[in-house]
Amino acid sequence: MTPSSAADQHAAPAPAGEDPLIPVGVLGARGRMGTEVVKAVNAAEDLELVAMVDAGDWLFDVANAGARVVVDFTRPDVVMDNIRFCIDHDIHCVVGTTGFDEAKLATVAEWLQPKPDVGVVIAPNFGIGAVLLMRFAQEAARFFPSTEVVELHHPNKVDAPSGTAVRTARLIAAARRAAGVPAAPDATSDSLPGARGADVEGIPVHAVRLTGLVAHQEVLMGAGGETLTLRHDSFDRASFMPGVLLAVREIGRHPGLTVGIEGFLGL
Amino acid sequence: MTPSSAADQHAAPAPAGEDPLIPVGVLGARGRMGTEVVKAVNAAEDLELVAMVDAGDWLFDVANAGARVVVDFTRPDVVMDNIRFCIDHDIHCVVGTTGFDEAKLATVAEWLQPKPDVGVVIAPNFGIGAVLLMRFAQEAARFFPSTEVVELHHPNKVDAPSGTAVRTARLIAAARRAAGVPAAPDATSDSLPGARGADVEGIPVHAVRLTGLVAHQEVLMGAGGETLTLRHDSFDRASFMPGVLLAVREIGRHPGLTVGIEGFLGL
Amino acid sequence: MTPSSAADQHAAPAPAGEDPLIPVGVLGARGRMGTEVVKAVNAAEDLELVAMVDAGDWLFDVANAGARVVVDFTRPDVVMDNIRFCIDHDIHCVVGTTGFDEAKLATVAEWLQPKPDVGVVIAPNFGIGAVLLMRFAQEAARFFPSTEVVELHHPNKVDAPSGTAVRTARLIAAARRAAGVPAAPDATSDSLPGARGADVEGIPVHAVRLTGLVAHQEVLMGAGGETLTLRHDSFDRASFMPGVLLAVREIGRHPGLTVGIEGFLGL
Amino acid sequence: MTPSSAADQHAAPAPAGEDPLIPVGVLGARGRMGTEVVKAVNAAEDLELVAMVDAGDWLFDVANAGARVVVDFTRPDVVMDNIRFCIDHDIHCVVGTTGFDEAKLATVAEWLQPKPDVGVVIAPNFGIGAVLLMRFAQEAARFFPSTEVVELHHPNKVDAPSGTAVRTARLIAAARRAAGVPAAPDATSDSLPGARGADVEGIPVHAVRLTGLVAHQEVLMGAGGETLTLRHDSFDRASFMPGVLLAVREIGRHPGLTVGIEGFLGL
Repeated sequence: MTPSSAADQHAAPAPAGEDPLIPVGVLGARGRMGTEVVKAVNAAEDLELVAMVDAGDWLFDVANAGARVVVDFTRPDVVMDNIRFCIDHDIHCVVGTTGFDEAKLATVAEWLQPKPDVGVVIAPNFGIGAVLLMRFAQEAARFFPSTEVVELHHPNKVDAPSGTAVRTARLIAAARRAAGVPAAPDATSDSLPGARGADVEGIPVHAVRLTGLVAHQEVLMGAGGETLTLRHDSFDRASFMPGVLLAVREIGRHPGLTVGIEGFLGL
Repeated sequence: MTPSSAADQHAAPAPAGEDPLIPVGVLGARGRMGTEVVKAVNAAEDLELVAMVDAGDWLFDVANAGARVVVDFTRPDVVMDNIRFCIDHDIHCVVGTTGFDEAKLATVAEWLQPKPDVGVVIAPNFGIGAVLLMRFAQEAARFFPSTEVVELHHPNKVDAPSGTAVRTARLIAAARRAAGVPAAPDATSDSLPGARGADVEGIPVHAVRLTGLVAHQEVLMGAGGETLTLRHDSFDRASFMPGVLLAVREIGRHPGLTVGIEGFLGL
Repeated sequence: MTPSSAADQHAAPAPAGEDPLIPVGVLGARGRMGTEVVKAVNAAEDLELVAMVDAGDWLFDVANAGARVVVDFTRPDVVMDNIRFCIDHDIHCVVGTTGFDEAKLATVAEWLQPKPDVGVVIAPNFGIGAVLLMRFAQEAARFFPSTEVVELHHPNKVDAPSGTAVRTARLIAAARRAAGVPAAPDATSDSLPGARGADVEGIPVHAVRLTGLVAHQEVLMGAGGETLTLRHDSFDRASFMPGVLLAVREIGRHPGLTVGIEGFLGL
Repeated sequence: MTPSSAADQHAAPAPAGEDPLIPVGVLGARGRMGTEVVKAVNAAEDLELVAMVDAGDWLFDVANAGARVVVDFTRPDVVMDNIRFCIDHDIHCVVGTTGFDEAKLATVAEWLQPKPDVGVVIAPNFGIGAVLLMRFAQEAARFFPSTEVVELHHPNKVDAPSGTAVRTARLIAAARRAAGVPAAPDATSDSLPGARGADVEGIPVHAVRLTGLVAHQEVLMGAGGETLTLRHDSFDRASFMPGVLLAVREIGRHPGLTVGIEGFLGL
C-alpha cells in the first residue's frame, strides 16, 4: 500500500481516493508466483491482503476474512475445488494455475450459471507485454504475405516451441484464414530437416535455447520491401504482476467466465 | 492487371469479379514515387490507369480520361492547385506530396464542403507497416512507464529525427497523457550532451545514420521485468505501394478530408 | 577511377600515388555480379579495367590486354578452363564462381605448383561483413556454452539453411571441439518436429523465409547471465564489391591457392 | 569446488587433475560483487577460498591464510592500500574496484618494479562478452565507413553514456584513425538537439534508459549495402564471474600491471 511499486509500473496510477479497498485472498501464497502476488497486493494502494492460504491451510479462512477476489496460483489437481468453493461463496477468481482444457472450462462455466454476479478469469499468461504482442500480431497478420515466429528461452525449458509461441502462431493463422491470405511464399526445395522450423497451422515457429536467456518471443512479418517485427522480452517473474493486479481490479466488472486478460486491457 | 504483383503482396486479394475497374490518374507520373505508382496501378487487377500527368502536361487530361481517383506525388508548390482541380471535377484524391500544415489542411476541408461525395486523403506515410507500428505504439503506450524511439536511416537524410519518428513520439506522448502516465523514470545526472537523445514531448528520440541502411524505426517500451519492442524496416520504395493502392480503393467510401491511411485499415 | 566510390566505402583509402595501376580483366562481365565488378573496378583509383570478357568472347583478349589480375564470376562448367588459362599466362585469379569441391581445389593447387609466383583465391563469400562475422563467431565460440545460428532470407531462396549459415555453424562447432566445450545444455523433451532447427555438427541452425528480406544472419551465444549476438545484414549485391577489390589488390602478395578472403583482411 | 558451476559456464573446463588448488582471498567479501565472487570461488574445482575480508576486518588475515591471489571489489578510497599490502606480501591482485586514473595506474606500476614476479590486473569490466564485443568492434572498425554505439540500461543508472560505451567508442575511433578512415558520412542539416547522440571522438553514442532493462550494448557498423551489428546483453551480476575466475587463474602467468582482461583470453 505504499504509493508506488514495481508491480504497478505497468498501469496508470490506481484511482485516487475514497474508494474502499478491495479485499484480496491469495491461494498458493507460499509458491513462487504466490509469493510475488502477496508482495504485489501488499504494495498496491487500492488493494488489501486479507488472507494467505497454502497447502495444509483452511480454505474457509478466505471466506471468513471477507475476500472479494481470490488469486489462485496453485496446482492443476486442486484448482477446480478452489474455484468451486469461491463461486459458492460469491468470491471472484483470478486464476493463473495451468492445466485447463475445454472440459474444465465448460465445468467452470456451468458452475457460474446460477451466480450471475460472480466472475472467474483463467489466464495462461498474465504478462501484459505478451498479451499485447499476440493482439498486435493478430491485427497485423492480414497485411503481410509472410509471418514467422521465433521464441528464445533458457535451456531448462522442456517444451519447444513454448505454449505462448504456439498460441501466437494459431492466432496469426486464424487471422490470415479469416482474411483469405494465401500460404506464405517459400521456394525451399533443398533443406536440412528442421531448418524451416515447426509448422503450426502453416506458420513456421523456431525455438532457440540459450544459456543466459530468460523468455523472449519475436513475430516477424514481411511484405514487399518492408518487415514489421514485434518482440517481447521477459526478464523476471515480476513482469506478470501488473497483469494479475489488473485482473483483480477488473474481475468485479466482468461476471461469468473470461479466458485471458486481453479483454480487460480496454483495447 | 496481372493476377499477382509485388505491390499487392500486402493486402488480401482484391475482390474478385464483375466489379467495374476503378479509373485512376497519376499526377507526378514521371517522378520517383509516381513511376512506382504507375507500375503498381498497372499491375492491379481491379484498377485501370487512364491518365499519366507530369510537369508540362495538361491537367484537364485527367478529367477528360474519366479518372475517378487521382494519385498525387508532385511538389508542395503545385499540389494545392491539383487538389482544387480534382474537387471541382468530382475526382477523389490520394495525396502523398509533402508540406501540409494546419492552414493548408483547413483550406482543403473548406473546398470539400460543397462537395459532400468527394474524398481527399493526405498521408505523410503510405507504408502499412509504419502505420501499424504507430497504431500499436499508441495502444501499448499507457501500459509501460518507459518508452523511447530509435530511428535508423542512410546517411544522406537531412533531418534528424525523421518526420515519422517525431510523429510516432507525439502520438505516444499523447496516449500517455490521456492515461495519466507520469514521466518515465530517469536517474541520469552525469551525461554527455546528446547522449539521451532529442526530447519530443517527453519521449527521447535517437537518430542513427549509417551507410548501408535504408529506413528503420524501433519503439522500445519497458515495464517491471519486461520490454516490448516494435520495429519497422523499410528496404524499398515499393513498400509504399500497397498503402497507395489501398487508399485508391477505399477513398470512394470516405468522403471529406482524411489525414493518414490508418482509418482505411479496418483495425 | 573517380576519387571516391560506393564500392570503396569498405576499405581505408587506397594508397595515394605514384604506384602503377593494376590492370584487371573481368570474366563473366555481363552477368549480374560481373556488371557490378566492372563498375567497381572502373571506380577504383588504383585499378585499370583492361578487358571485359563474357560467353562468346575470346579468352586471349585478357592476356593480350596485359591483365595482371582476372576476376571470374562465370559458371561452374567453364571456371576451371578459365583458371587454367590464367595460370598458364601468369595472371592472378580472384574467383567468385561457385561449385568448388575438394577435388577441384586440389586440381587448381596442382596447376599452381610449377608457377610459384601466381596466386588464385577462390571465395564462397566476398562480403567483408559476413567474413568478419564468421571469424568473430569462431573466436568467441569457446567462451559460451550455448550457440545457435538464425539466418533470414527472401522466400525465393531454394536452400535452407543457407550455405553461409552451414559454414558458420561448422566453424563454430570446430572451435568448440578444439577447446573441449561440451554439448550445449538443452532440456527439451516435448517438441514439435523442426522446432529446434537443423542440427549442423551440434549447432542448431534456424532458417526464416520472409517476403521483404534480402540476406541476414545472426549468431547467438549465451553464457551465465549474458548473451553475445553477432548479426550481418546484406541489402545489396554492391556489398560484395569491397571484398572483391581487396582481393584484387592483395592477390599479388599471396601466391598459391587461398580459399576465402579472410586471410587478406590483416586480422 | 563442486564439479560444475554456473560461474564456470563460460570457460572451457578447468584443467583436470593433480594441480594444487590456488588459495584465494576476497576483499570486500560482503559487498554485492564480493558475495558473488565468494560463491564462484567456492564452486570452482581448482580454487580454494582461504580468506574473506571486509570493512572492519584485519587485512593481515589474507597473508596469514596463505592467499596466492586476492580479488578486490572494495571502494576507491581503500583499494590502493589493499594493492600496496598485497604487492608487499607477494600476493597477486585481481581488481574490479573502480576509480583508477592514469596517476593511480602509474603508482601501482611503480610499486611493482621491485617485485618482478607479482601480477596485478585492474579491469573496468570482467564480462567476457563485453570484452569480446570491444575487441571485435576494434577489429572491424576500419572496414566500415559508419559506426555508431547504442547502449541501453535500467533507468536508475546515473551516467549516460555508460563507461563501457564511452570506452568502446574510443577504441573504435582509435582504430579508425590508425587505418585512415575518414569521418562517417552524415548529411544531417536540420536536427533537434540531441537527436544524433553524444559525440565521443567522432563516434555517435546513444543512451536509452528503460524500466525492465538491465545492461545492453550494441555497436552498429555500415558499409555499402550491408551492416554488421555486435550486441551484448547482460542480465545478471553472475555474468562477471567467469571473467573474474579467468583472471584469478591467469594472473600468476602475467607479472607486472595489466589493464583489462582481454590479454588473458588468448585471442
